[in-house]
Order: sequence, then structure tokens, then C-alpha cells
Amino acid sequence: MVHTRPALADLGLEAGKRARLNRILFQHGARHGTAMFLPYDQGLEHGPRDFFANPAASDPRYVIDLALEGGFNGVVLQIGLAEKFYWEYAGELPLVLKLNGKTEIPSDAAALSPVNATVEDAVRLGADAVGYTLYVGTPAQEQDFEQYRKIRAEAVRLGMPLIVWAYPRGSAIEAKGGKDSFYAVDYAARTASELGADVVKLNFPHPEKNLDVPGDYTGQFSSQEAIDAVVRSANRSLVLISGGTRAGDDAMLEKARESMEAGATGLIFGRNVWQREHDESLRFASALRTILEKHPSQVTPR
Amino acid sequence: MVHTRPALADLGLEAGKRARLNRILFQHGARHGTAMFLPYDQGLEHGPRDFFANPAASDPRYVIDLALEGGFNGVVLQIGLAEKFYWEYAGELPLVLKLNGKTEIPSDAAALSPVNATVEDAVRLGADAVGYTLYVGTPAQEQDFEQYRKIRAEAVRLGMPLIVWAYPRGSAIEAKGGKDSFYAVDYAARTASELGADVVKLNFPHPEKNLDVPGDYTGQFSSQEAIDAVVRSANRSLVLISGGTRAGDDAMLEKARESMEAGATGLIFGRNVWQREHDESLRFASALRTILEKHPSQVTPR
Amino acid sequence: MVHTRPALADLGLEAGKRARLNRILFQHGARHGTAMFLPYDQGLEHGPRDFFANPAASDPRYVIDLALEGGFNGVVLQIGLAEKFYWEYAGELPLVLKLNGKTEIPSDAAALSPVNATVEDAVRLGADAVGYTLYVGTPAQEQDFEQYRKIRAEAVRLGMPLIVWAYPRGSAIEAKGGKDSFYAVDYAARTASELGADVVKLNFPHPEKNLDVPGDYTGQFSSQEAIDAVVRSANRSLVLISGGTRAGDDAMLEKARESMEAGATGLIFGRNVWQREHDESLRFASALRTILEKHPSQVTPR
Amino acid sequence: MVHTRPALADLGLEAGKRARLNRILFQHGARHGTAMFLPYDQGLEHGPRDFFANPAASDPRYVIDLALEGGFNGVVLQIGLAEKFYWEYAGELPLVLKLNGKTEIPSDAAALSPVNATVEDAVRLGADAVGYTLYVGTPAQEQDFEQYRKIRAEAVRLGMPLIVWAYPRGSAIEAKGGKDSFYAVDYAARTASELGADVVKLNFPHPEKNLDVPGDYTGQFSSQEAIDAVVRSANRSLVLISGGTRAGDDAMLEKARESMEAGATGLIFGRNVWQREHDESLRFASALRTILEKHPSQVTPR
Amino acid sequence: MVHTRPALADLGLEAGKRARLNRILFQHGARHGTAMFLPYDQGLEHGPRDFFANPAASDPRYVIDLALEGGFNGVVLQIGLAEKFYWEYAGELPLVLKLNGKTEIPSDAAALSPVNATVEDAVRLGADAVGYTLYVGTPAQEQDFEQYRKIRAEAVRLGMPLIVWAYPRGSAIEAKGGKDSFYAVDYAARTASELGADVVKLNFPHPEKNLDVPGDYTGQFSSQEAIDAVVRSANRSLVLISGGTRAGDDAMLEKARESMEAGATGLIFGRNVWQREHDESLRFASALRTILEKHPSQVTPR
Repeated sequence: MVHTRPALADLGLEAGKRARLNRILFQHGARHGTAMFLPYDQGLEHGPRDFFANPAASDPRYVIDLALEGGFNGVVLQIGLAEKFYWEYAGELPLVLKLNGKTEIPSDAAALSPVNATVEDAVRLGADAVGYTLYVGTPAQEQDFEQYRKIRAEAVRLGMPLIVWAYPRGSAIEAKGGKDSFYAVDYAARTASELGADVVKLNFPHPEKNLDVPGDYTGQFSSQEAIDAVVRSANRSLVLISGGTRAGDDAMLEKARESMEAGATGLIFGRNVWQREHDESLRFASALRTILEKHPSQVTPR
Repeated sequence: MVHTRPALADLGLEAGKRARLNRILFQHGARHGTAMFLPYDQGLEHGPRDFFANPAASDPRYVIDLALEGGFNGVVLQIGLAEKFYWEYAGELPLVLKLNGKTEIPSDAAALSPVNATVEDAVRLGADAVGYTLYVGTPAQEQDFEQYRKIRAEAVRLGMPLIVWAYPRGSAIEAKGGKDSFYAVDYAARTASELGADVVKLNFPHPEKNLDVPGDYTGQFSSQEAIDAVVRSANRSLVLISGGTRAGDDAMLEKARESMEAGATGLIFGRNVWQREHDESLRFASALRTILEKHPSQVTPR
Repeated sequence: MVHTRPALADLGLEAGKRARLNRILFQHGARHGTAMFLPYDQGLEHGPRDFFANPAASDPRYVIDLALEGGFNGVVLQIGLAEKFYWEYAGELPLVLKLNGKTEIPSDAAALSPVNATVEDAVRLGADAVGYTLYVGTPAQEQDFEQYRKIRAEAVRLGMPLIVWAYPRGSAIEAKGGKDSFYAVDYAARTASELGADVVKLNFPHPEKNLDVPGDYTGQFSSQEAIDAVVRSANRSLVLISGGTRAGDDAMLEKARESMEAGATGLIFGRNVWQREHDESLRFASALRTILEKHPSQVTPR
Repeated sequence: MVHTRPALADLGLEAGKRARLNRILFQHGARHGTAMFLPYDQGLEHGPRDFFANPAASDPRYVIDLALEGGFNGVVLQIGLAEKFYWEYAGELPLVLKLNGKTEIPSDAAALSPVNATVEDAVRLGADAVGYTLYVGTPAQEQDFEQYRKIRAEAVRLGMPLIVWAYPRGSAIEAKGGKDSFYAVDYAARTASELGADVVKLNFPHPEKNLDVPGDYTGQFSSQEAIDAVVRSANRSLVLISGGTRAGDDAMLEKARESMEAGATGLIFGRNVWQREHDESLRFASALRTILEKHPSQVTPR
Repeated sequence: MVHTRPALADLGLEAGKRARLNRILFQHGARHGTAMFLPYDQGLEHGPRDFFANPAASDPRYVIDLALEGGFNGVVLQIGLAEKFYWEYAGELPLVLKLNGKTEIPSDAAALSPVNATVEDAVRLGADAVGYTLYVGTPAQEQDFEQYRKIRAEAVRLGMPLIVWAYPRGSAIEAKGGKDSFYAVDYAARTASELGADVVKLNFPHPEKNLDVPGDYTGQFSSQEAIDAVVRSANRSLVLISGGTRAGDDAMLEKARESMEAGATGLIFGRNVWQREHDESLRFASALRTILEKHPSQVTPR
């Protein structure tokens, strides 16, 4: 079963969403429908400890400059940094305003990521997309879906593309293979698609984590088979694969390759990029770009 | 006590609801007042594991095409798939927008199905009805009734027919015969009717599950007696019987027959339809249609 | 201390409330200021098991017809039955729209009756009063008072009489004599009056249930003394005494007599009426009416 | 440190609040800036058992008449009694509409007094002030402060004086000297002042309850020293001292004297007044008035 | 890595926020871009016990006068004191209206500071900034972030500078080094910055509290290194260092010096100032001012 990346024209999008996605995908980065985002909300999610490896990355200007130099399609910021730093770069680089987020200090057993900004904030700041973390499977599912619904509705009203960080999380997921298992990532992809994500950010699935997972996921799957299935589960939600904690470069690039083969639209790597010296960061970004360039979108003729 | 299916003219409906129900019941499917719906929200409710039996069914286009080919009166979708896929089929097949739903990952002991979309979304997308899952008897009853009330009010305001998935669920139901017991299904039917469902989706009752149920339900009832009572409890809420997990065809068809005998308006079978090869699906749908055709509505002369 | 039923003119009512109460009390039933209501929300509160004694009563039309034939001042319905059935009787019989209600399936320890309809629904349907169940003493008191306050405010805004089902309930009440104790019913009557009920529905008090009740209620009181005190505690909230579970006719009629002696405005008996054969129901209703007729209101000359 | 009662002109009040406070303090009662209120919400807070000592007091008319005859500056009622009884007295006696209240039936460990009426209700009924019970130190502090804030904002918007019943309550207070300790009452006074009370109702402090209280309160203080400090903590919130459960007359009058010496604006005694025979009530009220008359306000010359 | 205090012109501020910050920083106090605030909400946070050391400080006028005499850039008040006392000083001294606050009576394990006033209150009262306490790491993080977001949005809408009291608090922080640890303060600084604080109030970090803290914080850091890092983590949120409980003067002044060296904008010392005799307070304030005067802002030329 061959799966090709969905074309913008096939997504049933309102004009505003299509205009903004077009700007991100065809007027920045490789300009052929793929995307490479630089996420920078780890200062909130993990605290300043993420900057000890490369203290320069503590400064938002350093990271935004890196996104520009590295040819990224956009940078992801929380409201505070977006307000205080993005105005100097407005128009040069698409902004993804992350709308929710939390510290890692209290327990994650019933994870819920509170909302810190609105789609109207994104419009005011000139952002081209908004991001929302949905903790798939959390015992706080009801509150999560409810706050997500309000943001989805606002995104429709204002024509703002919605990127869902679809993260399996919480005690029940831990009991069924864990947050990176094929089962969990596949369910997360489908959930984002069923709930109206325009783009979904996913972790790369680990099919070998198949203990305690429901029946059909206990089989033997290659990582390519797993990522193929996950992208299929996302349907017409464009897929971005995230990097997660910093890992070996070869493994990361191989995952990137398999993801693009499977029909993903792009990558969203943060710590793997900016937790290195400046030139190393650019070199790694360049290696990612080389992979994306092999997967231009088929543009539907008008 | 003979019970005939209520006529649209007797339901006290506002013009908008009547127009839309008329479109579903008399301008699609068998076009004589019965209905056969194809529900497709299992990707959210159970995850992609439901598609392992027939991987093609993972693609929403495949399933919507099946609904068209199989002569169904409508397809049931969550907001995400409705937005991204229904626009290609708009006008050809009625859409039931399911307004709430959840993953099966966290515990179901105090089940509550969060709201993911609004009646206004349904109007915007050209849907002809909305669906809401009410977990009858859940310890979270207060939140459930509250979010239901808001949707009911919006459905009245916008003339949108409201289909209630009346599902007994939660720890207290498990202690009184279980969610498929005659007691539980009968109470669920009445609850939906008391709370203003235009249509109610019910599981087929199991009168043999009579351990721990309240006094009057401990007796011996045939399945026909049970379904007769359940449809009577629903009063002027039109009844749809659901298929549930896939089971033997003969048993399923017998239940369908008994339901229609009892005065149900139709059937809403999902996995029993699309968890088979394509041609098998159509053959089974055709068998269901044959049953419906024996039960046309008595149309009240104007 | 003689206590006479308060006159409408003495209640400080807005025009809308007075017009509607006048319609109920002086233009239906005995037409002299007393009232006899037929409540029919047990299908939700207890489930269809309440209809096993007289299966015909499962049909709302049967019960509404009974209210008409029996000369009742009104019928009490939840939103679903009101929408689907009342339109055929509109204008012939006052409707009391019950605004909240619940199933008996989950635990009652922290009882709370969720809101299922609004005062605006009542206006839309042509109702002449609304009903609200307040679980006096429930651990969920804060939510209960809060949702009640909103309904009270809407009832004031729209001139709709508000009937409060003042029901002692929950774990703390069970520990202080129980829900039918003189202590509990007396406190409930006063609570409804303090919180602005136009009419209060109460259970008949049991002064002999005086174990564990606060000091002053441990004394010996006759049932007449107890009901006298309860009606006094209700002040200018008109009192209706409910029937509760079906009991012996003589005992019921004696309670009715004592209630009217005490200054109650009327009775609200459901299962005691419709859980019998049709003619028996009318005979019992007639016996109740005979009692009411001995207690016409003193109409204040204009 | 001499402390004089703050003048209305020094409180930074909007015109509406000042007009209404002026009406209460200078156009009723002793008409010289002191106040004596008759609270009558005990029927809700404690139930009808409070009327067993003097059954006549169960009738709101009896108590309002007492307030008129006794020369009180106002009567305090919950919404229900205010709506049904105050219209006959409107203009003759200021009304304080108590906006929240609860029954004493469920546990008080995390006390919270739900809101039963609004500032708009007070305006509609012609009240001259509103009352709110703040349970200082309750584990439900967050909900308490939140509902209080909304009422405070409405009171500002509508120019309605806000009287805060500042009552230490809940498990943590019980562990720190109890609700009548000097520590608790002093903290309550300051809390009301910090949160914007125009008037604060306090219990008389008991400096001898100094076990388990924070360091500085373990010392030896006379009751005059304690009440002096409490009034100082209230700053520009005018202080009313409440009577609490009925106690010996001499002790009550001594407390009243010390309170007025300390700079309190007045007294708010309920059960100590109306739990006696009619003439005894008036005699006691007269004794209170005699004390107030020794403490006229210094009116700031215009 | 040298870190200089950000200039107002570089913060991407709306006109209203910039006008008000300019007024505070350049038209009061030392008038060169530093700030010294006198906080006075301890009467709510700790109760009147904070005034036992210097009873005169119980009177808000005394403290506001001290702020004027001591050359402070502003005084911080809760709504009640702001309404009743600030009108006499309006225009002479900037007001920071503290929008949330709580008593210390109930448990702090899941600390949450309820909202007591709005940004609109601040506008009405002529305040130049608002303050919000964010309990970083509290198990009640979701409610905290949610109520913070609403205030942030209002502050943007009305052009009102937002000062965040970023206080690590709650059971999880206690388990990771405590609320004053370098780890906790550093994370708090970044959190405030990510969430859009214009100014952030922080405790001075204690790098020696490094037991149980995450890996990178277990190292040896001087207090200057720690405060440098913390100010860097705050990015373009201006930093104020708080005094906390009263301590030795030399230690306090040394902390103040290190903070200003690190790039802080100023100090916010309360109890260390007003828990002394009047002249001592002024002397201490003068010593603080001397430190600030060594760190004037570099004003960006227009």
C-alpha cells in the first residue's frame, strides 16, 4: 500500500489555513512542500537545564538566528518569547505559537498541558500556525479534549493552521507499552486526525516495545512498517516527526529518512539541533535538509 | 400491546429538525422511513487496532464509498474526518457529525465522553444530524447531563436532529447486570427519551443477564419481549439498534429482524460491516437492507 | 397559632409569576386556590421498573390523559416528554417543566440532580411553572445551590413560578434521622423558603424518626403538629405534599387531610395515582379532590 | 495608639456606596454614624431549631417588625424572605441582602458558603447593602475568594456597600486556636480589609484561646487590647461585632461596650435579640442602643 | 558572558505598557531605569502577625508615606487597601495592584493564589502595573496557568505592565531542593519569561541547596554565578529580587549588589524595610538606593 503525502488542495481547508500553510510549506525552507521546524519551548517544559549543554542556546535570539541560518520553515515559541523576541524577525521566518505548555515539576501521571495563549494572540503576533499538546490517553482526557476543542474552533474561525503535538502520556499508557510504543504512537496519530489536526507532531514509533500492548501490536514490525502505519493513521493530517532527547546522529538521520519515505511532511527537531556548538548545529540541519529534498510534494495542478 | 414506529408528523418537531430527518429517512437509503447508518468513529474510540482485520478500512474514503455503494442513509464521523473528507461527498450522503468521543486508554469506571465539536460545526459542514454519547448511570452523570444539555439546546436552536448513543456504563452498571442487560438498556432507552433525544442508538438487550438487576428484571423474557419493551421505553425517540463488536452473521440478522419487528427505525452497524473484505461488506449490507424493506413507515397523510 | 394559606396577593410576586400561578390555581382543577399535580418524571428517576405495576403508564399519553380526566391542576414532565408529547395538550392542562433530574444508578451519598432544561425551554413550550430538585443537606450543597441560583434568577427574569422539590438527601442526613424525619423535612421547608421557592414540594414528616436528630426534635410530636410546623417553616412558599412510594390508601388520604389542615396548598401524588388500573386511578384522584374541596383559598378582595 | 472610627468621607467611596451607607448610618437608628443590625438568616444556617426558644420568631414579619420597633438600622435577609416579605416594609427599614449562605447539615471541614443571590437582586429589591460570608482559612479558600471577587466587582459596579461576614472556619483554623481566638479573628479582620470589605462583621476575639496559635498571639492580652487590635486590623473597613449564640446579657453588653470603645461602628446581634419574648427583646435592644449613643461619629465638615 | 539589562525599546511592548513602565522606571525613584518597590500585601499573606515588630506598619498610610519618603518607585497593594487608601496619594507614587493573594492558613502543598482583582480594577484605580503570584511547580499548575493566562490577556488588552511573582512552591519543589534552590529559582525565572511576564520578581537563589536537584544543578556555583544565570533565564523579563523574611542587613545588601551586577532591574523589599523603626527604615532604603544608583540603564537613543 503506497502512501503519498496529501496535497494542500485535497484537505478541504478554508482559505486562511491554506494561505498560511502554503506560506510555510512553499515560501520558506526547501519551498517544495516539506517542512523542518525548530521547536524552542523546552525552557518551559524542562527548565533551563536543557541549556547547560550549550549555554548560548539560553538566548532566544541565538536560536531564532539558528532557524534562519539553518533554513528552517519556522520556529516554535511560547507566548512570552514570541512577544518579546519575534517582532525583530517578523516576516522573515514563520512563527508557530505554542498555545499550551507546562513545567515538568509536578507529577505527570494525569498529565494535562494548560493553555497559555490564544489563537488571537497568534494572529496579533503574525504567526502562521499554532501548536497544542494533546496528551493522548491521559486520565485528564476530558479536560484536555475540552480545552483542545475551544482552540480548534478558534483556529477554524481565524483560518489558523493547527499543529497537534500528539503525545501519549499518563499512567494508563505506561501500563500499555509506554509512550513511544507503536501502539501508543499509532493511536495518537489517529486521535489527532479524528479530532481535526491540520498537522500532527509525533514521536517515532518503537515496534519492539510490544509488551502489554493490545493484541495486534504484539507482532514483529520493522521500524519502516511501523512509521508507514502511523502516517497512514494520520490520514490527511500532515505528519511531523519529532527528535526527542538528543541521540546519535546516524540513528536520528535514519529515522528522518524512514519518516519521509512513509509520507511524512517533515521534521521538528529541537535539542538535537541546538544542544551543539553553532557550526555543528548548522551541519546537522543541513543533513536533515538533504533528506527532505528527496521528498518534494506533488503539487496538484490548479 | 402493538407498537408502531412513530411518524415524523407526531413528534412535535421544529421545521429544521423535521426537514433534516425527512431528508435522511425519505430521501436516502430505502426512502421509506427506515434508516441504516455506517458509524466510523472507532479509530478514536478503540484506536487503529480496529482496522487490522481489514486495513483498507483505515482510509476514510474507503468507508464513505462503502456507505454510498451499500445504500446507507448516512455515515457517522468525528470532526476531523468530517472536515478533511466529507467535502468531497457533500450532498451525496447524509453526514451525522459525532460531537463527543474519547479514547479507550484511561479507565472507564467513571466514563465521560468529552465534547469535540459543536452543533454549529455540523451546520457549517452540511451535516443532517449530530450524535452524542450519553453514558447512562456513570458516576460522572452530572457532567455528562450538563454537557448534553448544552448540545440539546443548540440542536433545538439550529433545528438539528439529535441522535443519542445511550450507553449504560460505569462501575454501578457493572454491579447491576452489566451494560447489555435488559435492565440497563431499558433504563437507557427511557433516559434518552426523557432527556429529549430525537433518535436513540441502543445495544440489543440481553434479558438473560438478570443477575443483580432490580426486582422486575429478574424474570424470564424472550429477546423479542425485551426489545419490544425497550422500544416502548424510548417512546417517540426513534430507535436505532447498534451492532457492537463483530459477531456471527445469522445472530446479527436475527437481532436486526427482532428490532424492526419491535418498532425500531433502523440499524447502525459499523465493525460488522467494514471489518470484512469489500464485497462481503456489501453483501452483508444488502442482507440488512432486505430486513428494513419489510418495515416501511406508515406515512401520515398531510 | 393558626396558620392560613398565604394569598397570591401577599407574596410580592411579579406580574408574570402571579398570572401563571393564578392560571394554575384558579383556572384549573378545583379552581379555588388548591392544587393537585400529577408528576411523571419517574421514568428518569427510577427507570421503567416503575411501570411494571401498570404497563399502560409507560405511555406518556396515557398519563397526560389521566391528568386531564382526573381534574389535576397540572402534569410534571422532563424536557424530552414535554417536547414530544405536550404539544397535543397545550392549553388544556398546565405543564410543569421539571428542569433537573437524574437516574438512580450511581450512588446517592453526595446526591446532585443535574440540570436538563432551562426556564427558556419552559417558556418556549408554554409551561406554567418549572420544577427544581434541591437535595437539602447533600455534601454537594455548593454545586446544588449554585445551579439552583441560576434557575431562580431566570425564573424571576421570565416571570415563571418556581416549584422546589425540597428533598433532604445524602450521607449527613442519613446520620441525623433520615430524609423523612421531622427534623429533615422541617429544615428543607425553611431552606426552600429562604432561597426563594414560590412553591415547595415536601414529603410528609415523620416525627417518630427522632433518633440522632438535633435536640429540639427529639420530643414527642403528633403528625399534625409536625406538618403544622413544616408548613409554618415554609412561610410564604406554597406547600405541596408528595406521595412518595405507593402506600395504603387510608394512610395516604389521612396525610392529605392533615396537610390541608396545616395550610398546604395541595398535593403532588404520582405513583399512588398511576400505578393502578385506570378506573382505580380516577377513583383515588377523586378522593384526593374531595379533600382539597374542603380547603378553598380566601381570596383577598382587590 | 488611639483609634477613631473612619469617616465616610475618608473611605474613597463611589457615590452610590456613600449614598447608601449614609442612608443606613445617618438616616436610621441613632442617626449619628453607628449601626445596629438585626440578622435573620439563621433559618437557613441552623434550621428552624433556632425558633424553638421563641416560636413567634419563625415568622419573618414578627422579626422585621421587631427591627422597626427596636430602632435597628437594618434587617438582614436571604433572597427568599427578602422577596416575599420586604416589599411591605420597603423604604421604612434598610435591607441588607445576604448573598450567600448554607445549611449546617454537611461537614464544615472545608466550609464554603454558596452564593444564592446577586447584587442585582439587591438593587431590584431596594436593599442598601449586601452581605457575604467569607470563611477565612478554609481549605476551600480558592473557590471562596473567587466567588467573593465576582460579588465585590458587582458591588463596585452598582455602588452597593459590601458587608463581609469574616468568619475563620475549617480544619486548619481548628488546629490553630479555633475560630474565636484572637489570632483567627485578627487575621479575619485584616483579610476582609485587604480584600475590599466596606464593612466587616466579626466575632469578639478571645485572647485566652492562645494554645497552638502563632508566636505573637501566645501572649497575655486583655479583651480590650484584643478588640482594639482587631479593629485596627480592619483599617478603613467599618467594624460590626456579632453576638453569636445567645449568652448572658451582662457579658454581651460588656463586649458591646469594649467594641465601641475600640472604634467599631456597631453591632449585629440576632439570636440574642429575637430568642426572647417580645418585650424582653425590645429591652435588650434598648440597652444596646444606649451603648451606641455614647459613640457618635465625628462628621467631617464638608 | 556579559549580560546587560534589556532596554524598554527592545521589549516589543505595546504603547500602554511602555508608557507605564517608563513612568515607573524613569519618572520615579532614581529616575534612571532601576526600581525599588515597597510590597505591602503581607497582612493578607501572613496576617497581622507581621506587624508585631513595628505596630505602626499595621496602618497602610504609614507604609505608603514610607514609600514616598524613601524614594521608592512604587507601592504594592491588594485591592482593599488600594481602594480605601491610594486615592489620597494618586499621582504621587506609582501603584502596583496585586491581583491575587491568599492567607497562609490552609495547607500549601498544592498552593494556588486566588484572584482577588482584575486589570480593569487597576485601570480604574490609576495603577501603573499589576502583580500576579505564579506558584511554579505547584500540583495546581493547571488552574494557576489558566487564571494567569486570563490576566496576561487583559494586561495586553489594556496596556498594563505585568509583574509576575515567580515563586516555586508545593510538594514537588520541596522534594527537589526546595523553593530557594538555584534549580527552583532558575526554572521559575525561565517560566515567567516563557509565559510573558514583563517583570519578574524572584527570590535570591541558593546554589548550596543542591541536594535532590536535577543533575546540572548539583555542581558548585558561587552566588554571583547563580544570580547571573537566573537573570539570563529571565531574558527580556525585567528582574526584581525580593527580600523575603527579615535578615541581617549586610547579607541583604550583598545580595542586592550581586543582583544588580547580574543585570537585575531592581529590588522589592518589604518586611526588611518596614519591620523597623521609621528612621531605620529610611536608612536601610537609602542604602539600597545607593546600590541601585551604580546601575543606571543604558537608554537607547531614539
